[in-house]
This record gives sequence, structure tokens and C-alpha cells, in this order.
Amino acid sequence: MQNSVLEYIEKNRERHLEELKNIIKIPSISTQPDKKPAVLKAADFELAHFKAVGLENCQLLKTTGNPLVYGDWLHAADKPTILIYGHYDVQPPDPLDQWKSPPFEPTIRDGNLYARGATDDKGQYSTFLFAIEAWLKTAGKLPINIKIVLEGEEECGSTGIAKYVPEHADFFKCDAMMVADMPWLDENRPAISYSLKGLVYFEIAVKGSSHDLHSGLYGGMVTNPLQALSQILAKLKDNNGKILIPNFYDDVLPMTADEKKEIAGLDFDEKTTAKYLGVKELFSEKDFSPLEANWTRPTLDICGMWGGYTGVGSKTIIPAEAHAKVSIRLVPNQDPQKVQKSFGDYVRSLCPPGVSVAVDNHSGGWPVHIERDNAFLKAAASAYEKGFGKKLVFKREGASIPVVATFKSVLKVPMILVGLGLPDDGYHSPNEKINLSHFYGGIKGAALAFEALAETK
Amino acid sequence: MQNSVLEYIEKNRERHLEELKNIIKIPSISTQPDKKPAVLKAADFELAHFKAVGLENCQLLKTTGNPLVYGDWLHAADKPTILIYGHYDVQPPDPLDQWKSPPFEPTIRDGNLYARGATDDKGQYSTFLFAIEAWLKTAGKLPINIKIVLEGEEECGSTGIAKYVPEHADFFKCDAMMVADMPWLDENRPAISYSLKGLVYFEIAVKGSSHDLHSGLYGGMVTNPLQALSQILAKLKDNNGKILIPNFYDDVLPMTADEKKEIAGLDFDEKTTAKYLGVKELFSEKDFSPLEANWTRPTLDICGMWGGYTGVGSKTIIPAEAHAKVSIRLVPNQDPQKVQKSFGDYVRSLCPPGVSVAVDNHSGGWPVHIERDNAFLKAAASAYEKGFGKKLVFKREGASIPVVATFKSVLKVPMILVGLGLPDDGYHSPNEKINLSHFYGGIKGAALAFEALAETK
Repeated sequence: MQNSVLEYIEKNRERHLEELKNIIKIPSISTQPDKKPAVLKAADFELAHFKAVGLENCQLLKTTGNPLVYGDWLHAADKPTILIYGHYDVQPPDPLDQWKSPPFEPTIRDGNLYARGATDDKGQYSTFLFAIEAWLKTAGKLPINIKIVLEGEEECGSTGIAKYVPEHADFFKCDAMMVADMPWLDENRPAISYSLKGLVYFEIAVKGSSHDLHSGLYGGMVTNPLQALSQILAKLKDNNGKILIPNFYDDVLPMTADEKKEIAGLDFDEKTTAKYLGVKELFSEKDFSPLEANWTRPTLDICGMWGGYTGVGSKTIIPAEAHAKVSIRLVPNQDPQKVQKSFGDYVRSLCPPGVSVAVDNHSGGWPVHIERDNAFLKAAASAYEKGFGKKLVFKREGASIPVVATFKSVLKVPMILVGLGLPDDGYHSPNEKINLSHFYGGIKGAALAFEALAETK
Repeated sequence: MQNSVLEYIEKNRERHLEELKNIIKIPSISTQPDKKPAVLKAADFELAHFKAVGLENCQLLKTTGNPLVYGDWLHAADKPTILIYGHYDVQPPDPLDQWKSPPFEPTIRDGNLYARGATDDKGQYSTFLFAIEAWLKTAGKLPINIKIVLEGEEECGSTGIAKYVPEHADFFKCDAMMVADMPWLDENRPAISYSLKGLVYFEIAVKGSSHDLHSGLYGGMVTNPLQALSQILAKLKDNNGKILIPNFYDDVLPMTADEKKEIAGLDFDEKTTAKYLGVKELFSEKDFSPLEANWTRPTLDICGMWGGYTGVGSKTIIPAEAHAKVSIRLVPNQDPQKVQKSFGDYVRSLCPPGVSVAVDNHSGGWPVHIERDNAFLKAAASAYEKGFGKKLVFKREGASIPVVATFKSVLKVPMILVGLGLPDDGYHSPNEKINLSHFYGGIKGAALAFEALAETK
């Protein structure tokens, strides 16, 4: 390792932070069609950034959806090629009134940078770019070959990249893949993840009358769509937290005895977690601890629901329609298409008389399971331990990056899933943040990992 | 009957319609605090109208809420005194995008006047004022003594008048009471109602975490408030449409065999009703026809529900909160306070672990049952048959006017509940309307009823 690389990183802290703020200021919300211009602006911004750090072959790759930002540096003969992935799109910032500072005006408080995208994923993938910059501006070269691709649809199903990668498998050919879009286990334990969840997302619409009805004039005569939807949703899980979709658990890869032991050994602090979340108590599926449930069991959540009168005061109506959004996180080896079909069939089977129900599939992604006995993974883990100055653990994830499954099935290479976030970083929530020491440690970890991976075969 | 009264009504059709439009243009939505100025403007407008038609002693009566508009004419010695009631407040017009013409810009299409308040209740109570005007401007007197009072809180619980009337029982002393705030049975059958429902209205709030959570990072660890609320709401009714609140049906006055026969004889057209409502089919409580259920059985409806992300596209969160509004229509002899208590206890008992639930009572009103064997009722029925030129039927109501119960318990007089509306008039719905021939016939019916009631003792 050339010390000059780490010194460069140390010297450029302030500038790197300012550059991170600039990409964060762009509200690249991919799930909202009216934010399309901001999404495209973010792609252009990163294309310029790729060029500025010294990457070559920089270009926007056209997909069926938002463009991919691509760059590479391929002059380390006989050294491995690492493909780096990140996403420049973000979640919507709602509910806006809960933000202490505006979501797209990055603000520093208590050693954290607060903004939408701070940790998911702009603040994490940017560390790779700054590490590349540090190597190229000091050593004039990278110790490995690097390809880097950022997508703009991670928060809305990764449709474009999921089609692009299989059609351009050679273009992305590599020896291992790195992703930084994960949290540490807790504030003292950085982590590398070896399992990601798959995701399916549904919108359910129940329709009754052609217009809202007076609840007195027609009460008792018609099925209430909100009552019908509540009854459908109530039957998605039982009181033990078990999901009731027929055959849902058939393909679930069970937690091993070793994993169970390892999870127990992590001393996950339920009380601190409950306190941070602001809940009275944690609740998990019967026979599984909260951490076991989050990491090794599929989960189902109603993400949104609406219908009828939601303003101030009383309005006595039978609403014409009722709507809900539902996400299901899948574990290896559940098949998203199979779950989409059984969910739709099940929901339709629950529809009471007098109303109709429609189920719309928003997106689907496979879960990922990574073999831990791999030299690239071990080399990266050691490098990040040095970068952060803390001992690292291996963990599973409750969250999903569906496109990682696509890459894995197409490229068939080891995946290195590192994380710079913290569980309380507010992913998808108001007041999202990244700890600045994680950001700076992440740049160093990446720079060190490039060198460590160079020696791996 | 002086023919001049009916001639006057005929001659002044256009002007009466214009005057009705003027009161309708005021958006006196009592459930929305920001519409308070419009509510007060409507009260002032009607005070001026009372004076203009020739009523005396006109004044705004101060209540704990919105003012009552009062006027009288008490110079018919030895004749009965009739108290007339109506309400100058209206329901919110949401959902606004479903209106064909703006809700507060009264518009005539196909012989109907479309606007919020057209039938509920501005277009109905105004017929009494125009009938009073016709008598006083032609005969120079009324055949009976009249007291008339309009309230401004009917759509938000009638709190002010419910306190005012018992405290001023002598002031409202009368021999019978008239209300026009009801629909006909169908377009060929005007109706007088002998039973009104009571009403209780609740807002339920389920709270989980202190902020929305990422459904991947915390899925499987916490109770989802929307799932919890759905499970609570699903347990309010069974699949047969029976309400599951403990002891809920204990005080229900059963439908008599005569009523059952009478209802069957009305040949209620389920298919036409289903078509008008735009539903696939009607659905009613097991063992009760739709009309029986609406008229003689208590009904429960979720009027609104919301929580989490309700925008376009996907957002993968576990929402911090979930909310619902629920109305229950009570039949004689159910006690609203008793139902409020048992509903709250039941909902709290259904709360799953990991979240908390709060139940807020919005308002409560008693049901009303009126003896049909009464001379005032019969005299008014004959007069309105002449006014409309159609045979009239007696019916129950699925809807509520809680303050009628207050008047009944305080004044202990016969109640005459006439209706000018039609079931498809869009009460509380978009595109509310009143048929102009009902409006004009209602003015004549009222004028004729004043004379008929003069001969009743």
C-alpha cells in the first residue's frame, strides 16, 4: 500500500464531503414519474464525476428505464477485475413534516450528514469513486481492474438493469463484484453480508360502488370496500406472524444450526432496538427471535393503505374504493414469480361478495445467498477492518437489492457486500443520515480493499 | 285553501330557485374548522331570509357551537303550533374530482339542481320558508302558529343544539314538529318516515414506531400498524354481515311481522338500486333483505382509512401509524353511550402486541321511533300527496338526524318527517342534486300542510 493514497484521502476529506453533498442535493426519486428530470440530472452528474476521478470509457448506457452510468479502468494486467455496483436513485422523502432539515439540503449534525440518499446509496457508493480518485491521483494507477456501474431504478424495481445485464453479460465480465449499500450490525461492528432478500411488491384495489355513498341511506345494503380490504389484509398473516399465503414457505431455505448459534452469539440488543424504533416491544414470528426473523424468514408488510374520507372531522360515507400497497421480502430459495402468482390467487380468493379486487405486481426480485468460504470476501473483510479500525462480522440482510441476484445469476462470481450504514440511519425513513466517520472509513476501506483484492486469485 | 297561495308559489318559481342557489353557494361545511366563516355566513344569510319572508322574532341563538337561526309567527289563536327544523350546514364535497360541476356552483341539468346541500338540507328546508312567504304575502297570515329553527352542526354531531334545546324547552314548546331532510322511497313514491337511526362515529389510531421504518431492515421485527388496524377492523363484522361487538344487538327493537310484510309489499327494486350504485350486487346481513337491513338493523361502516405511503409507485416502509374512521347507525332502542363504551372496549381488546390503539368518539345520537297512529302525521301526509300529486308511503330510514331524538325526548310531541329527496340524490356524495319538481312540489306540500294541520287537534 502506498501511504500516499491514505494521506490523499485524509487531506481531501472536506472536498469529498462537499462533492457528496452535491449529488445528494439532486432529488432523484425514481418511483415518482414527475421526478424523472432529477433522476436524469443525477445520472449526468455521476457521469461527469466518473470522468473527473480518472475513470475511462465513461458513458450512459441506455436501458428500458433510467440510464446506467458506467466507467472502467482496465490497465492492471494479470490482476483481477472487480465490478462495483451502486444506485443513484432514492426513495421518496415522505412524510416531509417529520424531517428536521429538508431532505435534499444535506445538513451536518453531531457527526452525521442528514439527507435522503445519505446512506442509501449515494453516501455509500461514492466511497468507491473517492478511493479510485485517491489511487489514480497519487499512484497514477489502480492495483486492480475496475468496472463500475450505477443504476437509477433500484428503488422502483431495477427493471432496466435487470434486462440490460443478461443481454450484455460479456461487457460486465469480472472476477468478483462489490456493493456498498448495507448497514453495520451496530455502531461497533462493521459487517459484510452474505444473504440478501428478494422482493415482491403489490398494489391491491377493491372497488364497490361507482361513487361514495351515504352510510345511512345505503348502510347494510352494500359491501364496504375498506371493510373488504381489511378482511383480506387481516388474512395475510395470523396472530403468530406467520404468512398465510398457501405454499408460501415451501421453498424457504431453513436457517442452519450454525447460523442460529452465530446469531445468538451476536447478542443483538432488543431493548436498544425497540427504544430506537420507538415501539413498545419488538414482535417476531413465533419460534424466531427478531434478528432470526429479519434475516432468515420471509416478511410481509402493508406499506400504505387509503380509502374514503381522510380529512378532519366526520364524514359518513361508504367509500367507493379502497387501496393498499404490500411488500413481501423473500429468502433463498423463494421464487418471486411463484409468490406473485400465489399472492394474487390468494387475495382474489378472499374477496367478499359485492366488491371486486384487482392485484397489480409492481416489481419482483430474487433473494441472494453467497458462499462465505471465498478468498475475495476474506481479503475485502480484512481491508475494511483496517479502514474502519474495527472488527467485522458476517451477517444476513432483511433488505433487498434485487439486481444483485441478477448479477449473480449472469456473472456467477463471488459478491462482496460491504456496508457503511448503521441500523438507525433511517433508510427509507425521514432524517436519513450517514455517520461521517463511516463515510471516511469507507473510502479508506475501499482503497485498501483494491490492494488486497489484487493479491487474490 | 286560498288558491292565491298556490298561484303565488307557481308565479315565483324562478325567484325561489335563485334564492335557493344563493344559500347553496355558501360552502358551510361544519366538519372542517377552516370553513367556520362560511358556516357563520350561511347563518347570517338565513337570518335575513327569515326576516324577508315575514317571520318575526328573528334572531341567532348562541350555542356552544354554531348559532341557531330562529324565527316565528304566532298569531293563529287557538290553532296548533308547529316547530320546523332544518340544518344550514353541509358535508365536505370530497372527492372533488368526481363532481361534474363545482360543488358550490349550483348547476341545472335535466331538471335537477346539482350542488352540495341541494337536497341535504338546504333545498329541503327552504321549501318551508317559501311556503311561509306565500301565505304571508297573499293571505297576510298563516293558518297555524310556526316556530322555525335551523342549526349549523347537523353534519358534525349537533352538539350545540343538543345542549340548547333541553335548556330552553319552553321556548320550543309546540304541538308537533316538522322536518324535511329525507328521500322518497323511489321516484314515484313520496314518503313520510317514522324511524330514524342513531349514530356513533369513531376515529381509531394505531401507533407503532416513532417513525416510518424500512420494511427490509425491520421487517419481521415489529408489528405493522396497518396490519394491526386491518385485523381490528376485520373483526368488527363477520362474513354474514353481523357486527361482532359484544352485546351489540341486546337493545335492538326487532322488526315486527307487520313491518316485514309491509316492506315486502314495497317491491323494492334491488337490481335498479345495484345499477344506480354501480355495485355488482347488493349485500346485506344474513336473514335480512337489503331494505330490511337498511331500515331495521344497525349498520357499521369504515368511512375512511389511511396510513403509510399512498403516492404513486412503490415505497417499502413499515408505517409508524394507521388511522380509520368508523360510523355505526343505531336502531331503536340502542343507547349511543353504551355502544361507544362497548366499541372502545372491544377495539382495545383486539389490539395486537407491539402497537397501541386509541379510540376517539366524534359524536353520538339516539335513534328515533315515531307512532304512526297520529292525526298530525295523517293530515300532513294527505297535504303532501296533493302537493306532489302522488300517493305517499310510510317508511323507515337508514340515515340519522340525531337532534330529532333530542327534540322528541324534550318536547314529547308527534314528529312529521317528510322528504323531498330521491335515493339517488347523492347525499354526502359527489354530484348531490335535488329534482326541481320535488322542490316546487315540496313548497306546495308545505303550504297545504300548514292548512291541514290547522284543522288538527
